[in-house]
Amino acid sequence: MQFINFDKTNAFKKLAEHAKTAFLFRDKLDAKRVGECITPMAAGLKYSWAAKAVDEECIKLLQTVADEQELIAKYKALLSGEMMNTGEKRKVLHHLSRAQQGQPVMENGKDIGDFYRKELERFCDFASAVHGGKHKGSTGKDFTTVVQIGIGGSDLGPRAMYLALENWAVAEGKKKLDAKFISNVDPDDASQVIASCRLEQCLFILVSKSGTTQETLANELFVKDKLAKAGLDPSKHMIAVTSETSPLAKNPAYLDSFYIDDYIGGRYSSSSAVGGCVLSLAFGSGTFREFLAGAAEADKLAQETDILKNAALLDALIGVWERNFLLFPYTAVLPYSQALSRFPAHLQQMDMESNGKRVNRNGEPVDYSTGPVIFGEPGTNGQHSFYQLLHQGTGIIPLQFIGFTESQKGDDVSVDGSVSQTKLKANLAAQIVAFAKGQNSEDGNKEFIGGRPSSLIFGKRLTPLVLGSLLAHYENKVMFQGFVWNLNSFDQEGVQLGKILTKKVLSGNFGDDALEAYSKLLGV
Amino acid sequence: MQFINFDKTNAFKKLAEHAKTAFLFRDKLDAKRVGECITPMAAGLKYSWAAKAVDEECIKLLQTVADEQELIAKYKALLSGEMMNTGEKRKVLHHLSRAQQGQPVMENGKDIGDFYRKELERFCDFASAVHGGKHKGSTGKDFTTVVQIGIGGSDLGPRAMYLALENWAVAEGKKKLDAKFISNVDPDDASQVIASCRLEQCLFILVSKSGTTQETLANELFVKDKLAKAGLDPSKHMIAVTSETSPLAKNPAYLDSFYIDDYIGGRYSSSSAVGGCVLSLAFGSGTFREFLAGAAEADKLAQETDILKNAALLDALIGVWERNFLLFPYTAVLPYSQALSRFPAHLQQMDMESNGKRVNRNGEPVDYSTGPVIFGEPGTNGQHSFYQLLHQGTGIIPLQFIGFTESQKGDDVSVDGSVSQTKLKANLAAQIVAFAKGQNSEDGNKEFIGGRPSSLIFGKRLTPLVLGSLLAHYENKVMFQGFVWNLNSFDQEGVQLGKILTKKVLSGNFGDDALEAYSKLLGV
Repeated sequence: MQFINFDKTNAFKKLAEHAKTAFLFRDKLDAKRVGECITPMAAGLKYSWAAKAVDEECIKLLQTVADEQELIAKYKALLSGEMMNTGEKRKVLHHLSRAQQGQPVMENGKDIGDFYRKELERFCDFASAVHGGKHKGSTGKDFTTVVQIGIGGSDLGPRAMYLALENWAVAEGKKKLDAKFISNVDPDDASQVIASCRLEQCLFILVSKSGTTQETLANELFVKDKLAKAGLDPSKHMIAVTSETSPLAKNPAYLDSFYIDDYIGGRYSSSSAVGGCVLSLAFGSGTFREFLAGAAEADKLAQETDILKNAALLDALIGVWERNFLLFPYTAVLPYSQALSRFPAHLQQMDMESNGKRVNRNGEPVDYSTGPVIFGEPGTNGQHSFYQLLHQGTGIIPLQFIGFTESQKGDDVSVDGSVSQTKLKANLAAQIVAFAKGQNSEDGNKEFIGGRPSSLIFGKRLTPLVLGSLLAHYENKVMFQGFVWNLNSFDQEGVQLGKILTKKVLSGNFGDDALEAYSKLLGV
Repeated sequence: MQFINFDKTNAFKKLAEHAKTAFLFRDKLDAKRVGECITPMAAGLKYSWAAKAVDEECIKLLQTVADEQELIAKYKALLSGEMMNTGEKRKVLHHLSRAQQGQPVMENGKDIGDFYRKELERFCDFASAVHGGKHKGSTGKDFTTVVQIGIGGSDLGPRAMYLALENWAVAEGKKKLDAKFISNVDPDDASQVIASCRLEQCLFILVSKSGTTQETLANELFVKDKLAKAGLDPSKHMIAVTSETSPLAKNPAYLDSFYIDDYIGGRYSSSSAVGGCVLSLAFGSGTFREFLAGAAEADKLAQETDILKNAALLDALIGVWERNFLLFPYTAVLPYSQALSRFPAHLQQMDMESNGKRVNRNGEPVDYSTGPVIFGEPGTNGQHSFYQLLHQGTGIIPLQFIGFTESQKGDDVSVDGSVSQTKLKANLAAQIVAFAKGQNSEDGNKEFIGGRPSSLIFGKRLTPLVLGSLLAHYENKVMFQGFVWNLNSFDQEGVQLGKILTKKVLSGNFGDDALEAYSKLLGV
């Protein structure tokens, strides 16, 4: 296995050459192409890439990228426990939190999978005990609400997954507890969430891998202060999710503690105890295990070397084509599912924090563009908002649509001959074609030049299994892109400088007069 | 007044020339510059632009853009009722919904301001009547919740404003009703909101200017069906906000109706009845009037011709500098205030729908870039998410920070010697300097090259007055940019093609085999 910069590959040069002749998919998009350009995914999902600006030759060249950069070999090395987080000298094992894909991953004679499986069992048992009334609040009442205190990966992923499954759980009779989230150090955030809670029936989950996250610790004390003032025993109302070496571990201040390790990054932790505790408590551990099974199925499929049989790999490579050769600096994620309202925000972290890097895995600057800006809102809402620019702006923004045949709840109404779910899908189909084909007009204002590329991930219904596979698809896509760009997608040194300067401000030792001036402006 | 394309101005050529010599603000940012580069705004806000890549010469040239493109004259023409929405041949009068800035705007012998003021009085009176118990649900119970049914501008702005003021209202004892929002045609959206409501105490606001918005009408019937099934009289639980010529107007199916006209676009309608009904019902009409006063103050200040005394104008021109000469295709909006959690989503619509255009106001293609992609999430949350790319990605993303000295509720906790609000502000100051100055390091992975430009809008506390001025600042900024680019910022033809194709799908007369194929994939 060799790690070389993308622009040093033969494939890079050939793709750059190929990019000189535009593929006008606008004129090629017909039923035949739609039928042919579909790649099966895990959990019954499918990836449709007919409306992407890729021709046969492009696909062939993208396959050579996969081969030359040894993407599958690198993925398998990662799965087997090689130290792929080079900066922090760590393994990368979020896949192992859902299933073991090959041989056990051993360290110091211990099977790390055993550790993950043990924690999974422990928090599943804990959730069942709460549901069974074995754990109650300090006044003896059942818990009705779980409140996650965490930020970044301890917030965005779990929150997006909770919202994605809430309606499904209600429809299936699986909803056990409401979940809420406190993340921001802005005190109005915690104050508002607390004010909306019946504290004596709230179970808090404190999530910080290091046990030192400034925002999370401030919010912990905010909450404990409120619990104490309400006459409640904080130690009966809070569990911790942290690493075994953190100051929060094995601490009697918490009702129980569940562990993760340094091999699962925050943005990849939805399938660990970080997402598992809150999701198991909210929807039952069976739901969370289905979610893991969906992710594991996608992880398995992602080992396929043929890019036409591996949707995560193909999606990744089309993204690279769009970023490095068509030169698009952004990608919009547009789920036609209100349940996925915060899924784009989670992907924004997952993608931009992983591949928003200007140095390669050895710390040397690269000479090509890496991760794009990711943004998005659910459709049809976005259609009445920023789609104007997507259709008629001066730049081209690649699009990723997601849609489902059925709604989660099935609670619907027929108006003008169609139910709302049908309208939702009709809008989605219409948008793909509108973006791709556009519309000629004498009136420039009503002209759509088309040629706006999009892909579509679609399936029957958003269930836990489907959600798990969807999440893993994107995780693996981002991983493959990082391999192509020769990045370390698993650290986040870019967050450190702000932390250092914040400490300087709080200590009053500014060390920089502009920093002091800004602090004064803000009344620090 | 003349309307010419931006690249035909002398200023454009001079700025293009000036852009060849980079201004290294990274090395110039000190306390002196921070102190000097501040422009006062309305309602006590201030606009700090010290960390923007603009030197004295650049400011001078940007002033010539303002002069040559006659930005203030065009704004005044708009205020006075000239037909500035050229495509739709309409006046643009959202400013008039908060205050009359000059002479009355007359049409057919009538003062349009009278119409807006009358509707303002009417919905304020209606809100007071609800608060006074004069209107009750059909079972005789008080209304406790107001639910807005609308999409796009009828959703994003009012929702963002509601969330922005909720904590303030609680702290000040002004909270009257909870507000919820139904927007997406995805039936799971309406179903979930309805399930969370006590229907007999809910008042619904149906918002559609045309009275023909597909999503909104579907959701209206969804709601009415639920009301009827609960044994409630829908006509006692719903008011309408629409135009006087719409099918919804003067309709006994609604408890009352409040009117807007074609001169206020959806994305500019937060200060009309579209935002006014829900905000007055939630927080009282006095709160809404303060919000209008803040906007009016900003509108007045925006008439200043000196760009150093007109923050909206300066912000607009710095944005143009970044877009057309530094060639940045996006801008991130980063409020350090959880209350502004959905403010970036509203700005995303306001900006991208207004200036995401590739033709000028006469429908002729322009040869320069127009509106950027706008995205953002609140800090400090974003710091633990996509900021990695902002600090260390291969592209530069201009940033717009917003921050306040005080929290809205004042409910806080001291940890490690500082309260959370202080930590929030310390993080904000730290980020501005980290982005601007970066950090040298032998280790490429820990190097921050800096030179990431940002501005900061700051004030004491987010009140209704301040929120109104903040909203108007951005509205006016976007308007000025549209004038610079010679666009019509007030139509949205880009949404039409999708509507046409959706109708084709729903009617089964596809007229395009790819459209039919996609519809089949999705099970339409």
